[in-house]
Amino acid sequence: MLTDLPEAELRRYRSDLREPSDFDAFWSDTLAEARSCGEPVQVAPVPTPLAGVDVFDVTFPGFAGQPVRAWLRVPRGAPGPAPAVVQYVGYGGGRGHPLENLLWSAAGFVHLQMDTRGQGSGWSRGDTPDVAAAGPQAPGMATRGVEDPRRYYYRRFLTDAVRAVDAACGLPAVDPDRVAVLGHSQGGAAALAAAALAPRVRAAVVHVPFLCDVPRAVTLTDSTPYREIRDYLAVHRDREEQVLRTVGYVDGVAFARRATVPARFSVALMDDIVPPSTVYAAYHDYRGDKELAVWRWNGHEAGGVDDDAAALDFLRAVLAG
Amino acid sequence: MLTDLPEAELRRYRSDLREPSDFDAFWSDTLAEARSCGEPVQVAPVPTPLAGVDVFDVTFPGFAGQPVRAWLRVPRGAPGPAPAVVQYVGYGGGRGHPLENLLWSAAGFVHLQMDTRGQGSGWSRGDTPDVAAAGPQAPGMATRGVEDPRRYYYRRFLTDAVRAVDAACGLPAVDPDRVAVLGHSQGGAAALAAAALAPRVRAAVVHVPFLCDVPRAVTLTDSTPYREIRDYLAVHRDREEQVLRTVGYVDGVAFARRATVPARFSVALMDDIVPPSTVYAAYHDYRGDKELAVWRWNGHEAGGVDDDAAALDFLRAVLAG
Amino acid sequence: MLTDLPEAELRRYRSDLREPSDFDAFWSDTLAEARSCGEPVQVAPVPTPLAGVDVFDVTFPGFAGQPVRAWLRVPRGAPGPAPAVVQYVGYGGGRGHPLENLLWSAAGFVHLQMDTRGQGSGWSRGDTPDVAAAGPQAPGMATRGVEDPRRYYYRRFLTDAVRAVDAACGLPAVDPDRVAVLGHSQGGAAALAAAALAPRVRAAVVHVPFLCDVPRAVTLTDSTPYREIRDYLAVHRDREEQVLRTVGYVDGVAFARRATVPARFSVALMDDIVPPSTVYAAYHDYRGDKELAVWRWNGHEAGGVDDDAAALDFLRAVLAG
Amino acid sequence: MLTDLPEAELRRYRSDLREPSDFDAFWSDTLAEARSCGEPVQVAPVPTPLAGVDVFDVTFPGFAGQPVRAWLRVPRGAPGPAPAVVQYVGYGGGRGHPLENLLWSAAGFVHLQMDTRGQGSGWSRGDTPDVAAAGPQAPGMATRGVEDPRRYYYRRFLTDAVRAVDAACGLPAVDPDRVAVLGHSQGGAAALAAAALAPRVRAAVVHVPFLCDVPRAVTLTDSTPYREIRDYLAVHRDREEQVLRTVGYVDGVAFARRATVPARFSVALMDDIVPPSTVYAAYHDYRGDKELAVWRWNGHEAGGVDDDAAALDFLRAVLAG
Amino acid sequence: MLTDLPEAELRRYRSDLREPSDFDAFWSDTLAEARSCGEPVQVAPVPTPLAGVDVFDVTFPGFAGQPVRAWLRVPRGAPGPAPAVVQYVGYGGGRGHPLENLLWSAAGFVHLQMDTRGQGSGWSRGDTPDVAAAGPQAPGMATRGVEDPRRYYYRRFLTDAVRAVDAACGLPAVDPDRVAVLGHSQGGAAALAAAALAPRVRAAVVHVPFLCDVPRAVTLTDSTPYREIRDYLAVHRDREEQVLRTVGYVDGVAFARRATVPARFSVALMDDIVPPSTVYAAYHDYRGDKELAVWRWNGHEAGGVDDDAAALDFLRAVLAG
Amino acid sequence: MLTDLPEAELRRYRSDLREPSDFDAFWSDTLAEARSCGEPVQVAPVPTPLAGVDVFDVTFPGFAGQPVRAWLRVPRGAPGPAPAVVQYVGYGGGRGHPLENLLWSAAGFVHLQMDTRGQGSGWSRGDTPDVAAAGPQAPGMATRGVEDPRRYYYRRFLTDAVRAVDAACGLPAVDPDRVAVLGHSQGGAAALAAAALAPRVRAAVVHVPFLCDVPRAVTLTDSTPYREIRDYLAVHRDREEQVLRTVGYVDGVAFARRATVPARFSVALMDDIVPPSTVYAAYHDYRGDKELAVWRWNGHEAGGVDDDAAALDFLRAVLAG
Repeated sequence: MLTDLPEAELRRYRSDLREPSDFDAFWSDTLAEARSCGEPVQVAPVPTPLAGVDVFDVTFPGFAGQPVRAWLRVPRGAPGPAPAVVQYVGYGGGRGHPLENLLWSAAGFVHLQMDTRGQGSGWSRGDTPDVAAAGPQAPGMATRGVEDPRRYYYRRFLTDAVRAVDAACGLPAVDPDRVAVLGHSQGGAAALAAAALAPRVRAAVVHVPFLCDVPRAVTLTDSTPYREIRDYLAVHRDREEQVLRTVGYVDGVAFARRATVPARFSVALMDDIVPPSTVYAAYHDYRGDKELAVWRWNGHEAGGVDDDAAALDFLRAVLAG
Repeated sequence: MLTDLPEAELRRYRSDLREPSDFDAFWSDTLAEARSCGEPVQVAPVPTPLAGVDVFDVTFPGFAGQPVRAWLRVPRGAPGPAPAVVQYVGYGGGRGHPLENLLWSAAGFVHLQMDTRGQGSGWSRGDTPDVAAAGPQAPGMATRGVEDPRRYYYRRFLTDAVRAVDAACGLPAVDPDRVAVLGHSQGGAAALAAAALAPRVRAAVVHVPFLCDVPRAVTLTDSTPYREIRDYLAVHRDREEQVLRTVGYVDGVAFARRATVPARFSVALMDDIVPPSTVYAAYHDYRGDKELAVWRWNGHEAGGVDDDAAALDFLRAVLAG
Repeated sequence: MLTDLPEAELRRYRSDLREPSDFDAFWSDTLAEARSCGEPVQVAPVPTPLAGVDVFDVTFPGFAGQPVRAWLRVPRGAPGPAPAVVQYVGYGGGRGHPLENLLWSAAGFVHLQMDTRGQGSGWSRGDTPDVAAAGPQAPGMATRGVEDPRRYYYRRFLTDAVRAVDAACGLPAVDPDRVAVLGHSQGGAAALAAAALAPRVRAAVVHVPFLCDVPRAVTLTDSTPYREIRDYLAVHRDREEQVLRTVGYVDGVAFARRATVPARFSVALMDDIVPPSTVYAAYHDYRGDKELAVWRWNGHEAGGVDDDAAALDFLRAVLAG
Repeated sequence: MLTDLPEAELRRYRSDLREPSDFDAFWSDTLAEARSCGEPVQVAPVPTPLAGVDVFDVTFPGFAGQPVRAWLRVPRGAPGPAPAVVQYVGYGGGRGHPLENLLWSAAGFVHLQMDTRGQGSGWSRGDTPDVAAAGPQAPGMATRGVEDPRRYYYRRFLTDAVRAVDAACGLPAVDPDRVAVLGHSQGGAAALAAAALAPRVRAAVVHVPFLCDVPRAVTLTDSTPYREIRDYLAVHRDREEQVLRTVGYVDGVAFARRATVPARFSVALMDDIVPPSTVYAAYHDYRGDKELAVWRWNGHEAGGVDDDAAALDFLRAVLAG
Repeated sequence: MLTDLPEAELRRYRSDLREPSDFDAFWSDTLAEARSCGEPVQVAPVPTPLAGVDVFDVTFPGFAGQPVRAWLRVPRGAPGPAPAVVQYVGYGGGRGHPLENLLWSAAGFVHLQMDTRGQGSGWSRGDTPDVAAAGPQAPGMATRGVEDPRRYYYRRFLTDAVRAVDAACGLPAVDPDRVAVLGHSQGGAAALAAAALAPRVRAAVVHVPFLCDVPRAVTLTDSTPYREIRDYLAVHRDREEQVLRTVGYVDGVAFARRATVPARFSVALMDDIVPPSTVYAAYHDYRGDKELAVWRWNGHEAGGVDDDAAALDFLRAVLAG
Repeated sequence: MLTDLPEAELRRYRSDLREPSDFDAFWSDTLAEARSCGEPVQVAPVPTPLAGVDVFDVTFPGFAGQPVRAWLRVPRGAPGPAPAVVQYVGYGGGRGHPLENLLWSAAGFVHLQMDTRGQGSGWSRGDTPDVAAAGPQAPGMATRGVEDPRRYYYRRFLTDAVRAVDAACGLPAVDPDRVAVLGHSQGGAAALAAAALAPRVRAAVVHVPFLCDVPRAVTLTDSTPYREIRDYLAVHRDREEQVLRTVGYVDGVAFARRATVPARFSVALMDDIVPPSTVYAAYHDYRGDKELAVWRWNGHEAGGVDDDAAALDFLRAVLAG
């Protein structure tokens, strides 16, 4: 069944999200610090039985220079630097297995799939720790450090996302003028942030993004991960103001107001994990060229492989050399 | 938690399944009839954005010559006929989208992914109807025609599976002496049957197979699809004997007793869909060379991509030209 | 809790359903074809321990003349042809057991209880197969053949329903000028269609009817059987237009606009299987004399035996010889 | 799935239930007191639209002479006193509606359907209050007064059951030498008790009886009503001995050891409400001629109408005039 | 997620509850009768290992003079009569264990914790029976006697609540001019009624009160105990008017319109047991000084210990000697 | 229902847990390191409305000297150093609110309630962060750092538990020769470890302890927190050996084999969170004087306040000055 407003009202919905006044300074400081430290990118070949793709184990400097892992898949026999897709993963998953997720390289893109710090023990494996003091929190990631914007988990995760673009642009196999970002759910949140914060991004694919219009989202769903924020506030009853302030620094609506590259969004009207109005909120405020795929009958899987196929068409058109 | 016997007892478990006395005649007649009719195999190219794989829409004659669809994925630039993997799909799914399931062709195999008649509206799409009178049945496929072995859905499905091997062997891109079958759950049931019934099969990958030791399985789980058989018998209380007789013609334990090619099985000890003892039942009676991957902590997903990776190694070794 | 609009809004709700332009031709062609073929009605006595009722196993020609089963219960010792009730069964059930459902004959009506093709393995038994190719579909009946109005399951089922009236009118025990139709849920959908399509029907009892205002219904509930349509569209994402077009040929709102015999409806405001607004949609557009029982505190069981008792009163009044 | 021991072990299972030493005195005192007080049986006709059955609203003196309601259904035109079936209802239900439950009178039996004191707001209506102080208890009936055998709900309910037989034997329409008792679940418990305690009972139909081998039953299921006893003991942790002592006075195994009339039992091997071993416990200790229908694939509905049909055959044979 | 209206609409929501015309007479008669009978209050010391609190087992005359139990906890060494808190317990619980619930006495209040008649086998123990005929009812308390205001369970329970205040005022340890009432959920309903009906109450703490604006509440939640009323009406379909009339005599909105002492309310916006609009309904109509704590992220636990801490502050201020 | 072996078999059950060979060195090194660093204990008074108890906010050096919080509740007016209870909290909770958990101080004990690092956003609040890199993990704590015994969360938590005893013994209000440890579930695991590792502990109360016989426990329950370990291994399929090795360092059975002070255990036979056999495993191997309360009808709440009351008696007897 529909999980949010009727479609006609969704089309009119605008968020009244108020951003922290120092939002831009917060992120420029964070990124400047991240870029000032850490080890250089490392790229190690991974033996696989794959015939047409070379896989590499990449380690790049993320938040505060901390090492973050990724799989790099390079189509064999490409004639020089190729367009690249930097992909971010949904909640609970990590970069997975080298043999998974072969679509993007099969389609001719260099494919950098970023691991997710501290996650990767749910539906796919991860290898990157989240290095930070973990205060009292609800199980999961969405409230780790949530009482202080500078210690919040998603500050670290989104910084990793931007630095993954930096790393991709420096790879010899990649044409740094044709780099796109892509993700579903939590991965969509990362793609949206990277589109706003990483100047070399040329296109963004943002499928049913998490972390948009959060103060509204947490009143509309009982599903993880938004549920974690509600659970935290149900115990820490006096921290509402601080918690909502913190998540204001990572809200996708704020990033949408700052991003200008062409973007493809998708939304699912029966999604009970990411309320569709919160996707419309980001879409409506997005400043660049944009398109929105509306899936009327789907839950959080949204368009699935149909979204992927359309994203391939979109990326080919936008990144056409 | 464990869903069946302790592991030590699983290792000793043997099924006492009694096969119908005309089991072999039933299948030789069925296959002879299938091979006597239907249109020739059709192969139509499918345009995709994939750079290293050519995809074709295949229609081959299945049960009673009825047309069955499949995707054929051929690694581009292979130097002559290559080894092939015929894959069968799990319950509820169809052949899906051309852009899905790229692992096997990326690894250099010709990959024929058979559609599942009448299914394919659950987790992946299908395009093949099931042409038959559907008597009173529980929702789903497991009791369609279950009161008559000759009208039972799985007779048609398993015949399709054998005929898919026939079709694969006739494709120019395929080396007919290096054809393997592979599947998970319902797909594993098909792989097991094809290993027993299709003489050109050279190897079988049988992951957590459905349809093994059925009279026991239906007493051990409340999950679909075994649940459908229980639900049917709960209403048609006087048909127990006939129903169990029918499923005896498609039980994987009987096929295991007839198959001789090398096989890789997997089983998951916390599987609440396919009870692990029923997998051991098939494995223990399997007549060919065999190996069994035991996943102690997994449910029906079993080894997932780890099973796939190991299957690739197994197939490379067995099918080495 | 309430599952749909507040009662005051329900009272005002009107459907904006748009019927296919060839709706009437579709049904006149379908019925003409059905009436042109098939074997004559067969009536075989069934021995039972019942003292006051004779039970017969009836086979009548349904869709495309295909044989459909029914139980006929005739009150013993009636002085000549009697009024008759043709009953249709809810989703998942069949005609059941001869000893069930004795109310209508006990009240003096000849009672013809139609079996449901292909169903009858859920809460009651059936004996009638559904003869048709079953394309890819969600488990259940609601999407069987849904991409083509001529192949859709409910075309066959509703044609059976009309032909059951024809069969009843030809039975010696029945006064053909006093025949009513009756059903709950899916059975209500059939009663509504028969009231519109079978000219000899004199009254209709339509309790919480399924299949009304379908495009709205599927957005309001996650329960079977409407859920099956949603699940189908969630996988076959590009078929929304075709699927909604197909169900337009069987929507009860369209039948309501064509039926003119007296009718008794019921609706339940806490029904989570058939959203109450969709019942109001059919009721408000119904052209004949009508009454509506509103059950404020019930789910899909609606008035249960209270609905039955009121239906008896209604039928006695309308069919009074 | 199976909910209890494998079938082979069920066939051997015997209860080690120890009865209270004053069990017989308890019941003879209780019944003597009940028979010593209360108003005479009242029988009031109920107008219905039924053509072949006369329905009466009966009030008879139950426990401590308190008035208990019942429906009496008499086949019209019977030539003198007829055999009778006294039916008891399952947990949560009452005597229901006059138009329900027409099978037994349709089959030629006088049918007295006893209401259930204090219940009858679940799946069918009731009209009889339970007059007693209700101490602290879990919601439901199974722990009402459970700390004192003389105040326990089921003492009152089972006394009503015996007195219903007394009342039936005094009705002019009934042949007092051909009276049987019948029930499913809680109704089966009542039938078993009446068979042991009411000397005029000639046959008993005991389908999946509740209240047998209770100390074992409460360790094997989490479903209501056994769950209520567990919940009570989970809070009143120091009352285990007293509570188990109380239920010993109403345990069907003890009644089975005292009953000698022919009996038909049924059991369902997938029953998660009444564990099958507890039915076998009563069956194995039953002293009269007996038969047991084993439903391997059913839950608590057991044989449903098939049980009813077989019960009709059994009753006709045993009560044959 | 939010379970009721958005917060802005909650702030405006007013109930249109219509009280029975004889509401005040009903209660004055009930209380006059209660005060005219029963045994004097009994107070028996209970040995405990507690160092700073004396605990007593109190029996006081409640409805119709029937004995009701309570725990009395008196801070040791208080210099003369102290302010007192009379606490009522939530649905399903009883007065519990002497060693539980030590906050109020630790804070210096004499603490009388009333047992709940007939409850106390759920999350905490009780020792007080409910003496009354129990007509057909849904499991639980909310429909016991619901067809007659004079026999309704909550008439008895609320009368107990008023009489507990009377009993407290007569205890030597208590300053009768400084007595407050307090409760959560069902306990809040009792506190609200006592504030209206017991003239010696000086303050009321009413946390997420049950039994307010009942006709609306039962349409907004499927949770117990409101669910019991819905279940009752779903079976007794013809009793809606009578049932709603009965609950009108115990509706907290009516009590709110009559109470004038200072009160502290709390409400939880994600409460799925007591819909928040029904709390606002009582709060908005409350006639005395009032404050409302709004917990945006909590379910029925509402403010939990934060509500308790704030209630302590409120009581200290209002009851300051 | 029973969740594990029958009681007779539980009484005989012994674990075959194999401890790591360097178990004792691991813990002596860990504790030596912890004791070598960190700030001194800080004790700050907390204003409360409590009349008989003084509450203090304590910060003590835990694992690696990291600051850990606790509430200290001191009965007012004690004549010199008093016996003390150090309490550890169950999974998901923190030290909570100063006004909660007043039993132990009300009974005359100095009560030190340790906060739980990184938890305390579930059912009670916490204030202590867990300072460590968090590798890929399942949501929750049970797999944080589980691949390396030295980085495992429970190494840090149990070290905190031992250091809390050290801190308690240094408080002026405490008689260091009369200090006991106490906990339920995760808190019981901590109490068991402290009994083995902290030489000044004089008695231990270990209610339904978590973390005992872990390799068995994870095969018997699907509930959190054991579920987290299963979920981790389901994704990290190749880490079984390492993970089970790590948890061997914190298994309560190993601590039981080393503890010698008098202990009170409790176990619940219907516990679906901590399988009862795993409690028996620890109890049977416990080396000191011991008693076991068996709750036959309870789930994980076990004896609740009855366990508390009995623990008070036990502690008074053992710690009697």
